[in-house]
Amino acid sequence: MQNLEKETAFASKYLSQIAKKAEIKFNEHLPPSTDVPKNLHEAMRYSMFAGGKRLRPGLAYAAFELFGGKDESIWYATSALEMLHTFSLIHDDLPCIDNDDYRRGKETAHKKFGEGTAVLAGDALCILAFELIAQTEKNKPIQTLAKALGSYGMIGGEITDIECEGKKVDLATVDYIHYHKTAALIEASLMIGAQMADASEKDVLTVQRFGKAIGLAFQVVDDILDIVSTTEELGKDAGSDEEKGKATYPAVIGLEASRQKAFDLYKEAIAVLKELPGDTSVLQSIAAFIITRVN
Amino acid sequence: MQNLEKETAFASKYLSQIAKKAEIKFNEHLPPSTDVPKNLHEAMRYSMFAGGKRLRPGLAYAAFELFGGKDESIWYATSALEMLHTFSLIHDDLPCIDNDDYRRGKETAHKKFGEGTAVLAGDALCILAFELIAQTEKNKPIQTLAKALGSYGMIGGEITDIECEGKKVDLATVDYIHYHKTAALIEASLMIGAQMADASEKDVLTVQRFGKAIGLAFQVVDDILDIVSTTEELGKDAGSDEEKGKATYPAVIGLEASRQKAFDLYKEAIAVLKELPGDTSVLQSIAAFIITRVN
Repeated sequence: MQNLEKETAFASKYLSQIAKKAEIKFNEHLPPSTDVPKNLHEAMRYSMFAGGKRLRPGLAYAAFELFGGKDESIWYATSALEMLHTFSLIHDDLPCIDNDDYRRGKETAHKKFGEGTAVLAGDALCILAFELIAQTEKNKPIQTLAKALGSYGMIGGEITDIECEGKKVDLATVDYIHYHKTAALIEASLMIGAQMADASEKDVLTVQRFGKAIGLAFQVVDDILDIVSTTEELGKDAGSDEEKGKATYPAVIGLEASRQKAFDLYKEAIAVLKELPGDTSVLQSIAAFIITRVN
Repeated sequence: MQNLEKETAFASKYLSQIAKKAEIKFNEHLPPSTDVPKNLHEAMRYSMFAGGKRLRPGLAYAAFELFGGKDESIWYATSALEMLHTFSLIHDDLPCIDNDDYRRGKETAHKKFGEGTAVLAGDALCILAFELIAQTEKNKPIQTLAKALGSYGMIGGEITDIECEGKKVDLATVDYIHYHKTAALIEASLMIGAQMADASEKDVLTVQRFGKAIGLAFQVVDDILDIVSTTEELGKDAGSDEEKGKATYPAVIGLEASRQKAFDLYKEAIAVLKELPGDTSVLQSIAAFIITRVN
């Protein structure tokens, strides 16, 4: 366990460094809130700068570095990924979906700016993400992103998540929801980083498998934290999964088996890394970070 | 006026022909509703097949033909355009935005499938549109689309439209709203058709000016129809603009001046066509169709 802690500390530092640079780019890529329509631009910026680990940009950058990527175009991808993640959070938090008023200790977009503005701010972030990624003049990342996000990806996971609320679900359904809702975009972040560095198709598929494992682990840990943490620690309502009757791992297999599941996924992820060329220590440390994180 | 009627009839036939082929492609490009998540896919299909003139696919195809485009890739663009238009309608109709229960004589998506599903079906259509357009392996159309749609385009128009409800606005504001909310995507449809046929940058900018004029004309006519038509003719609540206190041309300059405005924009559009090479009679007829349409 001591090793895990050391790696987590390393990943934490790495992610902070990437986040710092990525956030400078978010600021450049987002419309200034002095531009019309001001309220919309303010809402977009509010949600993008409401905190967060910037995990997806960090993963994209780590994969980009691993495959020898050097140019500045990766920052279009990191901005696009965080915008797409934020878009999904804004829409997920809406009263007609998850109805969450707080996230990361701050009011959610619809609570602060009204529902209509929140819907449109999410839309605008999604569209801007595609505009930015198109500026890299590579088509593969756009297709990777769109597949990860669409009705066979993240959006598919979100709707199934709502539809299963309050229902008794089996493990296959929880797997489906978690893979689509969370792992798909984490997977895509790594793939895009690799694609931007012109990694081989084979290597892109390998980082995808790594991403799937840590993406699922991430969501299992999220499920566990919702139970064992306080609202202050989470920055959002603790225990809300159970209250809403959400399909989670702990609800289906119990807390201890969920912890084991997260650790198994971590080991699976580490095993996949052995198939990749070069120094994969950063990715390995991020995997450790994910299973030991306390948000 | 007789000439206008003849041209309108011609355009009507042309648009129907393109719509027929475009709809076959929509069906191919949309996920089957037998695929999980079924409810989401059903909602996407319901809204895509709820009728409509398929004006944007028709315009894209006409521009594509004008510049000698021949290959099948244009049908990715026509599907993408109609999906983006549908995405905007679904979100616009939401209770938190325009709160419309009927469109084209049918229940709107949120009324039929619930609000959460409607938000996500709109999102999924938007994302799928970018996936399809990326399959053309051209980057310019993606950037054209994203710019036309984002916070400086359609979404910017939509939010300003909501924010101005019930307020006294000036002509410049109505121009801003109508250009962004409606004309931007019509303009982009023509530009993308031209870009897909590898038209010169100069010609793309010329069709853009044509698109801006007919796009604005389209929205002015829409404003007029909302006043002079019955609910049956419109397929949605007639008189709803006035009821909601919407910023429209008739509200600001009166009905007669609005009719004149639409006709002036038509003449402007026709004048722009003279700058284009080749036979522009199809585009000319569509301009006539737009100002004489009764929906």
